[in-house]
Amino acid sequence: MLDKLKREVFDGNLELVNQGLVIYTWGNVSGIDRERGLVVIKPSGVSYNNMKADDMVVIDLDGNIVEGNLRPSSDTPTHLALYKAFEEIGGVAHTHSEWATSWAQAGCDIPCYGTTHSDYFYGDIPCTRKLTSDEINDKYEYETGNVIIETLNEKGYRPLEMPGIIVFNHGPFTWGKTPKEAVHNSKVLEEISKLAFRTKKLNQFVSPIDRILLDKHYLRKHGEKAYYGQT
Amino acid sequence: MLDKLKREVFDGNLELVNQGLVIYTWGNVSGIDRERGLVVIKPSGVSYNNMKADDMVVIDLDGNIVEGNLRPSSDTPTHLALYKAFEEIGGVAHTHSEWATSWAQAGCDIPCYGTTHSDYFYGDIPCTRKLTSDEINDKYEYETGNVIIETLNEKGYRPLEMPGIIVFNHGPFTWGKTPKEAVHNSKVLEEISKLAFRTKKLNQFVSPIDRILLDKHYLRKHGEKAYYGQT
Amino acid sequence: MLDKLKREVFDGNLELVNQGLVIYTWGNVSGIDRERGLVVIKPSGVSYNNMKADDMVVIDLDGNIVEGNLRPSSDTPTHLALYKAFEEIGGVAHTHSEWATSWAQAGCDIPCYGTTHSDYFYGDIPCTRKLTSDEINDKYEYETGNVIIETLNEKGYRPLEMPGIIVFNHGPFTWGKTPKEAVHNSKVLEEISKLAFRTKKLNQFVSPIDRILLDKHYLRKHGEKAYYGQT
Amino acid sequence: MLDKLKREVFDGNLELVNQGLVIYTWGNVSGIDRERGLVVIKPSGVSYNNMKADDMVVIDLDGNIVEGNLRPSSDTPTHLALYKAFEEIGGVAHTHSEWATSWAQAGCDIPCYGTTHSDYFYGDIPCTRKLTSDEINDKYEYETGNVIIETLNEKGYRPLEMPGIIVFNHGPFTWGKTPKEAVHNSKVLEEISKLAFRTKKLNQFVSPIDRILLDKHYLRKHGEKAYYGQT
Repeated sequence: MLDKLKREVFDGNLELVNQGLVIYTWGNVSGIDRERGLVVIKPSGVSYNNMKADDMVVIDLDGNIVEGNLRPSSDTPTHLALYKAFEEIGGVAHTHSEWATSWAQAGCDIPCYGTTHSDYFYGDIPCTRKLTSDEINDKYEYETGNVIIETLNEKGYRPLEMPGIIVFNHGPFTWGKTPKEAVHNSKVLEEISKLAFRTKKLNQFVSPIDRILLDKHYLRKHGEKAYYGQT
Repeated sequence: MLDKLKREVFDGNLELVNQGLVIYTWGNVSGIDRERGLVVIKPSGVSYNNMKADDMVVIDLDGNIVEGNLRPSSDTPTHLALYKAFEEIGGVAHTHSEWATSWAQAGCDIPCYGTTHSDYFYGDIPCTRKLTSDEINDKYEYETGNVIIETLNEKGYRPLEMPGIIVFNHGPFTWGKTPKEAVHNSKVLEEISKLAFRTKKLNQFVSPIDRILLDKHYLRKHGEKAYYGQT
Repeated sequence: MLDKLKREVFDGNLELVNQGLVIYTWGNVSGIDRERGLVVIKPSGVSYNNMKADDMVVIDLDGNIVEGNLRPSSDTPTHLALYKAFEEIGGVAHTHSEWATSWAQAGCDIPCYGTTHSDYFYGDIPCTRKLTSDEINDKYEYETGNVIIETLNEKGYRPLEMPGIIVFNHGPFTWGKTPKEAVHNSKVLEEISKLAFRTKKLNQFVSPIDRILLDKHYLRKHGEKAYYGQT
Repeated sequence: MLDKLKREVFDGNLELVNQGLVIYTWGNVSGIDRERGLVVIKPSGVSYNNMKADDMVVIDLDGNIVEGNLRPSSDTPTHLALYKAFEEIGGVAHTHSEWATSWAQAGCDIPCYGTTHSDYFYGDIPCTRKLTSDEINDKYEYETGNVIIETLNEKGYRPLEMPGIIVFNHGPFTWGKTPKEAVHNSKVLEEISKLAFRTKKLNQFVSPIDRILLDKHYLRKHGEKAYYGQT
């Protein structure tokens, strides 16, 4: 079942490797079929070299396995929390990519320093607060999803205008309308993180981009009157 | 029409990818036929993987499409402004390459710290001022070209002795006698930006290169008595 | 003799090169056959390009050559000291990988800043003290092993929960249940070192990960109730 | 004539590219036939893609062309000065490699922070003084050689125990018994420069390696009682 979505999720996982965002088993991608309420996700701890599209695991939104012989990613509850809260998204990606993870470990929001950032993320990319002891002890992976949702809500961002976040001490999660778009946003977040690191090291006093330029770039690509790309 | 120039512009765009200066659709190259007053430029938001030489768009200097089924790059008005102001150039390249863009986001000129820089750029590489709100709201991409021209004029550089610049909050634009040379200068600017970052981090008090050594290197390659390379 | 182990050690050595951890002859991997008390190790100063599995040298735990026409790695006494002290390990790897070696040269422990680190190393990765003049003059490579053991013991780590260390002024040594695992841990240590460098540069005041999150991640993968990966 | 040496010099030039030390035409390698007093060197400004072994230029120690249709590298007088002063060397390499050049632009000696460095360079790698105006105006490339020689002599290093240097505002020159060894030392210098940058950024107060450990590593590889590698 869901062969097309399995292929998309499989391709997304391999694309993480091809884009240099993941080594070993350090990442996972999922996708959702909204009509059926089923999620397809990478199996846990399986090497990308041997993995087949058919190894993708199908689960329902409560995490019950519907199809597949392998355990789903240990981060599955995080993905499910995001799908439940963000109805407009169709794919989620998680990595430990080197630049975004460094910002996550530093516990700092990634300032919007330029137009590369503004073309995709509509403002500073937030870093979550730390999880509490209770959240870690109880349902750690699920609470990781909740703290992402909480942070996005607090900052007033809609999911598709801020299609990613960094979790304190952990690393980035990104999303999009499809698994492919989620992976694309992982790559963009990584590039932005690298640029922001170097920008900060060159000039620690530089201000983030002005609101008007942020709007210009974000909206020329994503606004109602967008004029970037082909029609 | 302009098949040869289309091929050059197409090759230049792919070379940006091969040189690691561009991911996804984050760059564009154009070339001009001065006799006919026509410019050939990459189409907007088209993936480098599927692009063909024939997809290049032909426009006149006012931006009217003369040939092509695709929209030209959204940065087209910047390219046109440069062609109108700098009569000696034949190609323009724009990227979000990682080191040059970091300097652009930091809002700092790139100091001429050594002979690698002096072999190509005849002094510090300027960073433009920020655009005003009016400039952003009105004709943003065209005004981006104007602020480049303004900056070069203010510093007293001729276009071919300072074949590139960084735009504050945005990234690098380079140019040259041909599209190929414009792309070559993008790569050189990127390397110089990387060297300058590390130089500054190693020794924040180091002075730029002495004028006499800058002259020596620039002129042994580009001056009337140049003796670098073959005759 | 020990053809299977020779192949594993040979493969491990080549994997160091494939993973970008070693250039030229700057690393070595060994494995042990605990039943026979024999160690297989890379020959000294031999290029990875020409090396064959059969060139691996077999030695006993006192360093006597049991089989092979080439001299064993000059770091052999370090490997032997580790095998004698850490009975649960089956493989050792040594590199001068660029990030871990930078930390070793800086003489700093690598703080546990995040979950990537916690998934593999159960706390800060220690840097040894400097060797004394006597230790350097007398049995340098053997004493290098001893200072590793001393450091691990002082910190109260068991070898498999802290499967690597950095030696002051020198570089990383890692180990594992097999040569393959030792090499895997070299790669992980390198990635962690890179993340930690950037984390520290972004936020010099950030605290290491909280104990509870370190436990969560280390134990969900390595504890009795581990639930990461497949059963 | 000198076909074997031409091939070695040609291979050395290509190896600079393969090792990531050179882009475009930013480097050159030469070799000397001591018996005949003839030097073989890369032609000036010729792309590595089209270059053939036969394009290498043969010159005498005064710089006169003995064989070849192309102009020799513009850095030829630097190479010749080194061959005349350092009788034990047989090859010279020059690059603008990214890490060594950053140190050269910063005008700082590269401190000997660890054993990777000590295995090849017998102490801090010096940065030359700036050239005077007269030296730049008169015989710039020849004086570049002289300032290298002056610096090595002042520091009391013999050429083969300090097989490279960085020239202030410019970049690295290395040498060795053969062209191949000179190129090898370029790569090692680059790696060392990278490690030293990061070491300094991690711990600006760390001391260079102790003399006794420097001696141990340098001499176990290069001393009379060397025991590294095969006999």
